[in-house]
Amino acid sequence: MKNFFISCLRSAGQVFFQNSAWSGILLIAGIFWGSHQAGSTAPAWGALLALAVSTLTGRILHLPEDDGRQGLWGFNGILVGCAFPTFLDNSVWMWLALILCAALSTWVRTGLNNVMRTWRINSLTFPFVLTVWLFLLAAHSMHSLPSDSLPVPGEPAAFASAFDAGFMPLLRAWLCGISQVFLIDSPITGLIFIVALAVSSPRAAIWGAVGSAVALCMAILLRASASDITHGLYGFSPVLTAIALGAVFHRPSFGAAIWALLGCITTVFVQAAFDTALAPVGIPSLTAPFCIVTWLFLLPLVKFASDKAPDHSDWHRHGGRQGRHDRKER
Amino acid sequence: MKNFFISCLRSAGQVFFQNSAWSGILLIAGIFWGSHQAGSTAPAWGALLALAVSTLTGRILHLPEDDGRQGLWGFNGILVGCAFPTFLDNSVWMWLALILCAALSTWVRTGLNNVMRTWRINSLTFPFVLTVWLFLLAAHSMHSLPSDSLPVPGEPAAFASAFDAGFMPLLRAWLCGISQVFLIDSPITGLIFIVALAVSSPRAAIWGAVGSAVALCMAILLRASASDITHGLYGFSPVLTAIALGAVFHRPSFGAAIWALLGCITTVFVQAAFDTALAPVGIPSLTAPFCIVTWLFLLPLVKFASDKAPDHSDWHRHGGRQGRHDRKER
Amino acid sequence: MKNFFISCLRSAGQVFFQNSAWSGILLIAGIFWGSHQAGSTAPAWGALLALAVSTLTGRILHLPEDDGRQGLWGFNGILVGCAFPTFLDNSVWMWLALILCAALSTWVRTGLNNVMRTWRINSLTFPFVLTVWLFLLAAHSMHSLPSDSLPVPGEPAAFASAFDAGFMPLLRAWLCGISQVFLIDSPITGLIFIVALAVSSPRAAIWGAVGSAVALCMAILLRASASDITHGLYGFSPVLTAIALGAVFHRPSFGAAIWALLGCITTVFVQAAFDTALAPVGIPSLTAPFCIVTWLFLLPLVKFASDKAPDHSDWHRHGGRQGRHDRKER
Repeated sequence: MKNFFISCLRSAGQVFFQNSAWSGILLIAGIFWGSHQAGSTAPAWGALLALAVSTLTGRILHLPEDDGRQGLWGFNGILVGCAFPTFLDNSVWMWLALILCAALSTWVRTGLNNVMRTWRINSLTFPFVLTVWLFLLAAHSMHSLPSDSLPVPGEPAAFASAFDAGFMPLLRAWLCGISQVFLIDSPITGLIFIVALAVSSPRAAIWGAVGSAVALCMAILLRASASDITHGLYGFSPVLTAIALGAVFHRPSFGAAIWALLGCITTVFVQAAFDTALAPVGIPSLTAPFCIVTWLFLLPLVKFASDKAPDHSDWHRHGGRQGRHDRKER
Repeated sequence: MKNFFISCLRSAGQVFFQNSAWSGILLIAGIFWGSHQAGSTAPAWGALLALAVSTLTGRILHLPEDDGRQGLWGFNGILVGCAFPTFLDNSVWMWLALILCAALSTWVRTGLNNVMRTWRINSLTFPFVLTVWLFLLAAHSMHSLPSDSLPVPGEPAAFASAFDAGFMPLLRAWLCGISQVFLIDSPITGLIFIVALAVSSPRAAIWGAVGSAVALCMAILLRASASDITHGLYGFSPVLTAIALGAVFHRPSFGAAIWALLGCITTVFVQAAFDTALAPVGIPSLTAPFCIVTWLFLLPLVKFASDKAPDHSDWHRHGGRQGRHDRKER
Repeated sequence: MKNFFISCLRSAGQVFFQNSAWSGILLIAGIFWGSHQAGSTAPAWGALLALAVSTLTGRILHLPEDDGRQGLWGFNGILVGCAFPTFLDNSVWMWLALILCAALSTWVRTGLNNVMRTWRINSLTFPFVLTVWLFLLAAHSMHSLPSDSLPVPGEPAAFASAFDAGFMPLLRAWLCGISQVFLIDSPITGLIFIVALAVSSPRAAIWGAVGSAVALCMAILLRASASDITHGLYGFSPVLTAIALGAVFHRPSFGAAIWALLGCITTVFVQAAFDTALAPVGIPSLTAPFCIVTWLFLLPLVKFASDKAPDHSDWHRHGGRQGRHDRKER
């Protein structure tokens, strides 16, 4: 039972690649704070429920225990749990669909990892993206899953107005870029998330903060939609790309730092690309831009100064405390 | 010559994973009945033509003989042959395109199986889906291929009215869910198909019937489009998922039965998702929801009670009468 | 330094699978002529800049030297360089994005080749297609990258009028089908390109010319959009498919010739399909139809009369002068 709780908490941390229950507690606290501020704690309760469901699913299907211990069964699930109440109206069907989708995300991860291990990469948060996309698309066709918070399918929005770059709006957008990783729109939550990262890995915290700042600059310079910038929607994918490339899959070096910055900048373009590409079907990009850019930067297996032989199929190979548990997944 | 005919008949059966010429005869009879009732036997003649073309293609290209004997060259082709006259107007160009597409489906299957064997899964009916999608999309841009029966590209349809669940409408929708596997909208054909399945595998027949019933319940409860439900359009993909997971790729066990039901329910959501996702480009989902869900449920290589070591690249491994011919393709 | 120039020139030739600096010089001359005629040499300068950037990127990242020598670092880059000024307005941001995208195309190619080598195929020009798609989609969401030359996202265009098939329009459309490989709309450039091909491989030149002619006939017979036909937009992908299947990946034989013609005809349908499929998001198909059809025809590893054991992961295996350098890429 205690193992189960620790596994769930670590799952929250693994969204940011951190195998740490303390990070997880802080992240969940941040989710509660942010969703409370926004007027409904449903996303936070959804996160807890989905965390439990997806972690239990791993146990029931006898997926490799090591993954469970490191919180790898539930990190897609917690994102599923945040996403459903954010985009779908509160109803019995929404909660039942959330449970199915959270369970699904666990074995879809095992399946996609089986596929991607062929090229020594990891499915990252794509199981979350894929399964939630399918359910949100379905909600547009199913009257029992009202989707008033989803974008209306149609042509991409025209340019409205430029971002008004004062100090407070910039600070807000920068912190929300971090809080939006868990679909929370709150600067305070962004601060809590930076602390949660620093508890486990100061390097990851710095790269996360840098990633959000770089993305913010790029989005303003390229004059993306002001409202998207304000709510941090140009930040959360670059934040994850920056942490992945800067603090997880490569050891620190000058080359790796440039690589991470390039990845971060590329993610801003890919975020804008998904905003256009998904407009006709009325779904959000979720963390797809992060996944795609990180794959494009990991697949060539470029090796920097102090890197070991490149293998990006499991981030625990990269010297974390749990490094000894690696590569036992089927 | 006799071999050629048996190979063609088995191909019809293989759409439902049945290596049986008797099933094939009954299925083709059902197609003729249903298309005759609907006012045009063009889909039935298209099915026969495409069956011949795709099976010949396998022979001409010297693809592995074992596949041909088991009817694996033509099962995508027969679906191509049903789909073209259903969605495109009768014209010389339609029939020439049908011939090209049927031939294409044979070697696209070989190619996709070469890809998917890497992860021990099979391309299922996806060669049919991919090639027909390409030609139907093309029909929207080519004036010699009039496409009045295709959906008009545009925004997803709004919710019109709820399904009126009397006994006869339910019975009709349940049986049409089965007949629509071959794009036929006829309850009698649905009955013939159940018999065709029972001739070769009672277990498959039961799972097909259960799959259509479960999908019908889910689509009504989730309030999908009433007209789609009436015509069985929420049924045919879950029927195939139920047969694949319940009667083909796993041996009977309690766990495998739950797994098949979960797959069946998930397919209903994915069907609704594709209805939204394909609206802007004006093409039908075909059996894509079945393929995607079945892959997502097979890729993790979950093993139930009495299963052998999981390998889902070829359903003839799974103890059919032709089990000894397996894995000789390429 | 001399090596660097030769590498760049060969890169231009490699767009047509030719490892020849002389071809490259003629192709670049054709690009300058065509873009000068069209009123702006920006695409030609873009091509040169992108060629330098992508080739330098290969060197900086220490990608395999053999690839660089054969011009395989830069052939996606030169296409990126032609595409950006063609579809995006002249601005500082366009040029900076061009540089990032050209660099990206080099390592995306390495990554995609790592993936596709699993099934003995090559990524062809898909790194160009993928990276440019992402940036063009992004341009619709970013006000600093005005995209007045891009299609407006919306429903596929209705049929306007039939192609008027006189001798001069036919000649123009045939030659533009070849010049459009580098996104140039000029019959003279088409002629220069045929010469450029003949300098290195007369067989490739003949297949290129035949491919454009076959595509032209098919597009007229199937009554595709007249303006697309006039500007050669139905030609450039079939031209590349014809060269790939007819003159690169198979040795000459009757079977291989039929195979190449089938591929060429299929590409016309797939081009029409992409015109429909991409309309809602407002981007051009680029050479995606060529890539997809060529993969579908190479993946089954069909072997004709005089072919060696099929391996399509690198066209230099196929007896070119550089054949001895093959398969050293990681």
